Amino acid sequence: MRPITFLSDYGVEDEFVGVCHAVIARIAPDARVIDLGHGIPRHDVRSAALVLRRALPYCEPGVHLAVVDPGVGGSRRPIALRTIEEDRLLVGPDNGLLSLAAQRFGGVAEIVDLARSPHRLEPVSQTFHGRDIFAPVAAALAGSAPLADAGDPLDSAEFVQLEMPLARPGGAGELLAHAVAFDHYGNVTLDVEHDELTSIGLRLGQPIRINNVEAVYASTFSDVAAGSLLVYQDPYRTLSVAVNRGSARERLALQHDDTLTISGA
Amino acid sequence: MRPITFLSDYGVEDEFVGVCHAVIARIAPDARVIDLGHGIPRHDVRSAALVLRRALPYCEPGVHLAVVDPGVGGSRRPIALRTIEEDRLLVGPDNGLLSLAAQRFGGVAEIVDLARSPHRLEPVSQTFHGRDIFAPVAAALAGSAPLADAGDPLDSAEFVQLEMPLARPGGAGELLAHAVAFDHYGNVTLDVEHDELTSIGLRLGQPIRINNVEAVYASTFSDVAAGSLLVYQDPYRTLSVAVNRGSARERLALQHDDTLTISGA
Amino acid sequence: MRPITFLSDYGVEDEFVGVCHAVIARIAPDARVIDLGHGIPRHDVRSAALVLRRALPYCEPGVHLAVVDPGVGGSRRPIALRTIEEDRLLVGPDNGLLSLAAQRFGGVAEIVDLARSPHRLEPVSQTFHGRDIFAPVAAALAGSAPLADAGDPLDSAEFVQLEMPLARPGGAGELLAHAVAFDHYGNVTLDVEHDELTSIGLRLGQPIRINNVEAVYASTFSDVAAGSLLVYQDPYRTLSVAVNRGSARERLALQHDDTLTISGA
Repeated sequence: MRPITFLSDYGVEDEFVGVCHAVIARIAPDARVIDLGHGIPRHDVRSAALVLRRALPYCEPGVHLAVVDPGVGGSRRPIALRTIEEDRLLVGPDNGLLSLAAQRFGGVAEIVDLARSPHRLEPVSQTFHGRDIFAPVAAALAGSAPLADAGDPLDSAEFVQLEMPLARPGGAGELLAHAVAFDHYGNVTLDVEHDELTSIGLRLGQPIRINNVEAVYASTFSDVAAGSLLVYQDPYRTLSVAVNRGSARERLALQHDDTLTISGA
Repeated sequence: MRPITFLSDYGVEDEFVGVCHAVIARIAPDARVIDLGHGIPRHDVRSAALVLRRALPYCEPGVHLAVVDPGVGGSRRPIALRTIEEDRLLVGPDNGLLSLAAQRFGGVAEIVDLARSPHRLEPVSQTFHGRDIFAPVAAALAGSAPLADAGDPLDSAEFVQLEMPLARPGGAGELLAHAVAFDHYGNVTLDVEHDELTSIGLRLGQPIRINNVEAVYASTFSDVAAGSLLVYQDPYRTLSVAVNRGSARERLALQHDDTLTISGA
Repeated sequence: MRPITFLSDYGVEDEFVGVCHAVIARIAPDARVIDLGHGIPRHDVRSAALVLRRALPYCEPGVHLAVVDPGVGGSRRPIALRTIEEDRLLVGPDNGLLSLAAQRFGGVAEIVDLARSPHRLEPVSQTFHGRDIFAPVAAALAGSAPLADAGDPLDSAEFVQLEMPLARPGGAGELLAHAVAFDHYGNVTLDVEHDELTSIGLRLGQPIRINNVEAVYASTFSDVAAGSLLVYQDPYRTLSVAVNRGSARERLALQHDDTLTISGA
């Protein structure tokens, strides 16, 4: 029995997550289900795609169910796919949500359209495919049902990819990064790695400027005073902006994809 | 070992849910426990009763623990009951919370008062019967303890029933419905089914009016523009009002049981 | 396989809790993990320490993972310890978080520093020791790895203890208590037990005053009218202040450690 991970924007206020768990348990009572979280901001496909990409390397290869699905009941396809590396099985809507994780594991080896999956719960509702399509398919796959039997074969060229912003050099000694994601502490994930900061001459421990606000390129929060701004290598080895015991998102008034100018002090 | 489902208004901020899980695990370490959710608005017995009624058909018959208990420690009875259909065991306070689900499964075959249950944790607190009565009884029942041994026999005529509003015809071509429940997206569950809308001459795909606001009787969110109002058959096959990528509850400024007038455009 | 409990301030919005579960499941796939909750206010070490002390007696002795860690990546030690009573294994940062629970179970029998634990995930990040140190150590201990092999031996005299306020007599017939903790209903835990109230002449059922507001020393919420203030013995047998169907924290405008003057009416 493969383990199942489950990520969504269903929140913890309603019964949606619980009902999906119940559906899985009826089909695969012995499957272990690990909630990767259900607090993705509503309809924020890209944040969920980023979470999935960075969290899956810590998860046993298995069935990875993800549902952030603003187009549910419309023309977007419900899909399941197998990755080239590690044979992970990803299940969810084909709106880019699964694309970053699929790339992370070498791309798509096999992909099927679940619209007419024999595992789906009839009658399929128009608005709760998590319960009626994705959860029962994930449960069947956890119990070793072949992927090819879960739906109709699909050309991997049709698999929807996400567009992501890319950091780029700005003026002399400047890097133009983007606010790619936020956590609930207000820490801000950038599209920058350590080598890109060093390439514009910045060194760990140095004062820097972010959007003209003083900051430090630090190892961890406690390297700066409470209330101070820092850039640090986050636990997934990309760079993030934080305020020690505060919110960088609020301090810098950031929205998704906003550009941040990083330079020496 | 029967599976246990667990629904409450305990929230996820405190340790109440976790302590109930711990109590269950000590008594029935092999029981699978599925959280149907703990985000019921505080003391909202009726919302929880509705969730239980619509969620249980998706759950393997087992022990169904539910705790929304504004009268804890007072005169309301702690109870456990077996339904006539499917032999489901429902455990919780006798304040109407279990009544809609019990009706859904054919009514009550057997019911006991848990106030002096041999399974309870002594000393029983005045304010946390979830931990001291309901969780240990649910765990014992999951492990096949007979219902009759869990408490004192009770006459099912004493079982507390919920009163629910009922949709009714209004003026010519009008239906007066009620805002029965809300989810955290702001979708509004009505006390109306598809046949009642067609009975006043409305057809799927048509423009309609709700409290004099323009809407569409649609299949799914994406059938209308972002920000537009729709009525749709929700995943439990009752009708709901929504705003595509917005909140119908806010748009129409609705409280529980508010009347909504639905008519042709 | 020992059960694992898990308490943190990670919240349910991000994937932090889920990733820790995933890490545990890779190392100890058969371990039962019980979430005691992840809604501790951010960085509130003392509230978490109090929750751990009162919740663990309801949990099967096992591995008790707790992470509220404002100093992560700084000089505070990551530790694991065994309690003198019941052989419980506590895992977390050495910032006082584990100290109240350790006292509750007779003190520390053995304690190790996890900074160089062979169980840690390399490379250890500066800011997510839950994933890289605490979760993998907890999983290894659940699978019966000896505590002595999990880290370097530490002198229990170095184990960081929390300072707690203490209730004391005030003027004649007055008790000066403190607002030690809050739950999400706004109930307020005091540092007072039943005997201390009776020692200043108060009896159950009597009217009393709290900060000069009228209240009742009652058994449960429903003993007073909706909106009224009460003091009651909470489910952990310490005294708390509540408002029936309201928030005592808001009514009395309380912050952590604020003093409350309790007296006869």
